[in-house]
Amino acid sequence: MMNAAYEECIKACLECMEACNHCFDACLKETDVQMMAECIRLDRECADMCAFAAKAMQADSPFVKKICQLCADICEACGNECKKHDHDHCQKCAEACLKCAEICRSMAA
Amino acid sequence: MMNAAYEECIKACLECMEACNHCFDACLKETDVQMMAECIRLDRECADMCAFAAKAMQADSPFVKKICQLCADICEACGNECKKHDHDHCQKCAEACLKCAEICRSMAA
Amino acid sequence: MMNAAYEECIKACLECMEACNHCFDACLKETDVQMMAECIRLDRECADMCAFAAKAMQADSPFVKKICQLCADICEACGNECKKHDHDHCQKCAEACLKCAEICRSMAA
Amino acid sequence: MMNAAYEECIKACLECMEACNHCFDACLKETDVQMMAECIRLDRECADMCAFAAKAMQADSPFVKKICQLCADICEACGNECKKHDHDHCQKCAEACLKCAEICRSMAA
Repeated sequence: MMNAAYEECIKACLECMEACNHCFDACLKETDVQMMAECIRLDRECADMCAFAAKAMQADSPFVKKICQLCADICEACGNECKKHDHDHCQKCAEACLKCAEICRSMAA
Repeated sequence: MMNAAYEECIKACLECMEACNHCFDACLKETDVQMMAECIRLDRECADMCAFAAKAMQADSPFVKKICQLCADICEACGNECKKHDHDHCQKCAEACLKCAEICRSMAA
Repeated sequence: MMNAAYEECIKACLECMEACNHCFDACLKETDVQMMAECIRLDRECADMCAFAAKAMQADSPFVKKICQLCADICEACGNECKKHDHDHCQKCAEACLKCAEICRSMAA
Repeated sequence: MMNAAYEECIKACLECMEACNHCFDACLKETDVQMMAECIRLDRECADMCAFAAKAMQADSPFVKKICQLCADICEACGNECKKHDHDHCQKCAEACLKCAEICRSMAA
């Protein structure tokens, strides 16, 4: 049903969106919210960027490459921030972000 | 990682989002675009509503029930419109929409 | 250019979106982020809901009333949370949210 | 309340979003929808990109420059497509898009 080349990338974006939205929520429930401020900010932006990229691929946008390039940049920043924190939700989010960054980077190439 | 009660509903929303975005694109590529105008309009709105609902569940929003209620209404309207058209993408979209409407309706109850 | 009945409501939604996004950012930069956690959560949801409602009115969606009803509920919750905090950005945000809630409520009626 | 440097660009994005969403709706109501297919597709993408860019500036995102760069590209494509059509909504949309493209381009520089 979908452009086969996009399938893996859409999947990575949707998994990253889920990990970021969950991490956003979990960070807001942590005791030391202040330490998580950058994580919260980037989780929101990364989740929304991934949703935007998934939509672009699903609708066969003429801007898929440029959108995936930007998505890769934002995922990478979010993954690097999340990686600094020991919380399980941050570590899982870092993994999803960095994987998505890599796949989006290939899509953009 | 995610509230277990939400998992099925998030999955249905993301599948409906994908079906709607694909149908939006495919309708725009049909020969008789005019006949597809309502489908195109509802595909956009339904895809975006499903993304919004998935985000709300993933981030454990206090408005999940009300958001899923609205999502069910929009999915139902989109599914009923898509059902009228014989194109494969419309039939698949109708199925995803009506399934998502039902699951969102239960979530909202 | 736009349905005249929608103009005031679109304006209120866009002003509320701006106030919420600014408050989201400013809350994340406060010293006591933990106290602002609910505010941050609702700012995000309210900003995104207002953008969704503005889009629906601008594109003459068949779901404008139901969308504005939900938008009113979310704006009201966000406004009531922001009102509790003395920060200038929270007070301004509360004002924009409660005004938008009222106008969306009328639109939904 | 807002970073002064962003004000003009946010305003251009919100005006472009409105023009695109209105044009999306108006194109779907035209007699010859098929001729408007590319316009409809780009109107959706441009409106949503502009909303994303406005949000990024309002929340002081670290990715404002890159997001405005992408927004400029999408606005330019949408403006160039709209310019081809004589409908009043297309001409107005082209104007809003090309103005927004220029302002986003400066922001990205």
